[in-house]
Amino acid sequence: MSAGWFRRRFLPGGPLPEPQPPGPRSSPVPYHRPRFLRGSGSSPGATDASRRSDSRPVRTPARGRTLPWNAGYAEIINAEKSEFNEDQAACGKLCIRRCEFGIEDQEWLTVCPEEFLTGHYWALFDGHGGPAAAILAANTLHSCLRRQLEAVIEGVTATRPPMHLSGRCVCSSDPQFVEEKGIKAEDLVIGALESAFQECDDVIGRELGAAGQGGGCTALVAVSLQGKLYVANAGDSRAILVRRDEIRVLSSEFTPETERQRIQQLAFFYPELLAGEFTRLEFPRRLKGDDLGQKVLFRDHHMNGWSYKQVEKSDLKYPLIHGQGRQARLLGTLAVSRGLGDHQLRVLDTNIQLKPFLLSIPQVTVLDVDQLALQEEDVVVMATDGLWDVLSNEQVAQLVRCFLTGNQEDPHRFSELAKILIHNTQGKDDGATGEGQVSYDDVSVFVIPLHNQGQGSGGH
Amino acid sequence: MSAGWFRRRFLPGGPLPEPQPPGPRSSPVPYHRPRFLRGSGSSPGATDASRRSDSRPVRTPARGRTLPWNAGYAEIINAEKSEFNEDQAACGKLCIRRCEFGIEDQEWLTVCPEEFLTGHYWALFDGHGGPAAAILAANTLHSCLRRQLEAVIEGVTATRPPMHLSGRCVCSSDPQFVEEKGIKAEDLVIGALESAFQECDDVIGRELGAAGQGGGCTALVAVSLQGKLYVANAGDSRAILVRRDEIRVLSSEFTPETERQRIQQLAFFYPELLAGEFTRLEFPRRLKGDDLGQKVLFRDHHMNGWSYKQVEKSDLKYPLIHGQGRQARLLGTLAVSRGLGDHQLRVLDTNIQLKPFLLSIPQVTVLDVDQLALQEEDVVVMATDGLWDVLSNEQVAQLVRCFLTGNQEDPHRFSELAKILIHNTQGKDDGATGEGQVSYDDVSVFVIPLHNQGQGSGGH
Repeated sequence: MSAGWFRRRFLPGGPLPEPQPPGPRSSPVPYHRPRFLRGSGSSPGATDASRRSDSRPVRTPARGRTLPWNAGYAEIINAEKSEFNEDQAACGKLCIRRCEFGIEDQEWLTVCPEEFLTGHYWALFDGHGGPAAAILAANTLHSCLRRQLEAVIEGVTATRPPMHLSGRCVCSSDPQFVEEKGIKAEDLVIGALESAFQECDDVIGRELGAAGQGGGCTALVAVSLQGKLYVANAGDSRAILVRRDEIRVLSSEFTPETERQRIQQLAFFYPELLAGEFTRLEFPRRLKGDDLGQKVLFRDHHMNGWSYKQVEKSDLKYPLIHGQGRQARLLGTLAVSRGLGDHQLRVLDTNIQLKPFLLSIPQVTVLDVDQLALQEEDVVVMATDGLWDVLSNEQVAQLVRCFLTGNQEDPHRFSELAKILIHNTQGKDDGATGEGQVSYDDVSVFVIPLHNQGQGSGGH
Repeated sequence: MSAGWFRRRFLPGGPLPEPQPPGPRSSPVPYHRPRFLRGSGSSPGATDASRRSDSRPVRTPARGRTLPWNAGYAEIINAEKSEFNEDQAACGKLCIRRCEFGIEDQEWLTVCPEEFLTGHYWALFDGHGGPAAAILAANTLHSCLRRQLEAVIEGVTATRPPMHLSGRCVCSSDPQFVEEKGIKAEDLVIGALESAFQECDDVIGRELGAAGQGGGCTALVAVSLQGKLYVANAGDSRAILVRRDEIRVLSSEFTPETERQRIQQLAFFYPELLAGEFTRLEFPRRLKGDDLGQKVLFRDHHMNGWSYKQVEKSDLKYPLIHGQGRQARLLGTLAVSRGLGDHQLRVLDTNIQLKPFLLSIPQVTVLDVDQLALQEEDVVVMATDGLWDVLSNEQVAQLVRCFLTGNQEDPHRFSELAKILIHNTQGKDDGATGEGQVSYDDVSVFVIPLHNQGQGSGGH
């Protein structure tokens, strides 16, 4: 397996060992201000915590962290910051052991201590409010996933998951019920990813809470297992499949705008979450005194369309979701609506929590790699929002196709490609895009060649 | 304009006048049992209230109802029942007047008493628990829609809806905010459809409540306005566009299965809605005593995938959503999760209400008719679930294409086609489908030729 990624933190391909989450002493992570735009104007493409004065790419040797699995070499592109960067990444081999339910003592037994099923794991975490949550997620999520997969491995490796994990049918038509519901092995992997994200979120809440730290991060994870690629996303990173004649989007972004109805609905169910300080309704702009009594455009939680309403005094409050596009903020504070962490995050100078509005659950897309007639140049590009703010899917695909076609022999071509993608967000090598837009955000990219991710890899 | 539809109740093309909703005396509608399957086995394709002993199509003259706009001729196909059938339909011209906001007195004034904007309207209502709700919806919804459209007509006919209905800018950059949000005239029509469904639901709740009657219905509405076709759906009816080389699905079905996560989430937020009688969790089958302590497959509101959980006593309760496919029921009672009415509906022998779980809001799809290079044979087929239970989209498209190609000169060909589609659900003319499946449900069909629905029709 060969994969290119920048900023990278450890050697791809190695096994992912157990994490040692940083305690308050081992990782004195400073708390940074979260992405914040309450009441401010618009400064496109920039977020407060990640803007840098100089976008020149710098290579620095990694300053060693104490985590053993992270002690390989690291190469930092596109950051002058310390290794405690808000963008974090992890990748490696996923080794899953086989456990079995001991019927006699009703305990789980590890019956196969050696690795039973192997896969590959790639993850990008884009932090806000400091790097603490992103670092913890990079150190923890793969272990959560391994545990969750081991807990259901009997079902994952069966043709069809059994109704009971012990395999014993309580009801003779159990297999028929499972079949009628259309439950497949891949549904258990999706379930394991969903549970792993939740478990990791709990760990971050506990660890950062104990350390008196805050912050959160988005998470984009790709897992190659049994001939399928699972892409799980909670936040505004993105993964796309680029082939010679096709671009396939493998993730959706979760922002206050894309999740407007879910967020407004929660405020409708629990108005106390807004503490009388915000209005649930969406208007084209924030209303002011002159609007009182007028009929203005608005949208509520149940509406996809727009209508008009007569403005009342309560409509003049700050909107639950405000701003458009990259400037849209939840409760004037946060630019994403899914992710990990943020357990302590509150609206500035208030006691209003953001966490109830945030989901740690990812949306999971499954790509049946074995069903694709894969070419050498077919790759998945995973990147944090810094890339997609500047380059469209089509521009990325064009860069991928141009570079890979011309560099078929280079053994480091996927790493080089990742570097080129990042350089294109820095106003360098922008001939391909022709627009010369620049990203002031952190940018992290994985380029994953799919050609070896089919049935040949992993397995048991 | 020419459209074919069966069972039809009045002459298509005429204006839709104001409704006179039936009071308790004018419409002594009997209360029928709702679709009910609690604890029963599976009897595919049949629902209790609509099963008939004989599927022979019968033509009966309509027994006159007192509603003036419904006093045209009626032709009943596929029913031996009275005109108080659970399937109801309505269609006609939609005449919208222009109103304006009088700034002086802050009142709405009708400045254009003549019709200002015209469109066409088609609606199918599939009732349950008796025909009362479906009859009321057929008599009421178009008026609600007309009112809602008239209330925003200034925005609907503008290039871009104004921030304020009076057209006066409170803030000089108002048009820019509306543009940044991407709000278009069609969003106001979508909003009007959403509001009209809600208003009609309120009317049904009030009228049936006052009459001591119950029942509900699904609603599928198509509106042709200003070169666009809007399809609004709340329930399990379906509309598709059939062209020579294309089938485009214009609606999604809303059933306890397709809306599982929304329904489970509501029960998570408000567990008191289940009164301790139901479990929110989904299992492949209803659990029993033998399952206690075992690890079984399950899904909760936040999960798209499946996982295993150890069965507790509370998991043995009846599931909130139970059964698969056509047999899936909400609270053991209802096969649909969106629609109008059902304000009084309770789980048999309990006080547990279904209404909190039901949405009256439709999903609206917009078809830009003016952007399609329309052919004579391009039609929209709208039908209640009785048709789609038996015929796939592809089979319907095949029947449409075969018939229309061979009958280009017949002036009644769209009506004939609607009849053929229904016959195909009755085990007649089944050569085209080759499967000979039979529907025991009511079946209602509209066939709407699109060729004259572009800019030429309607307008102001």
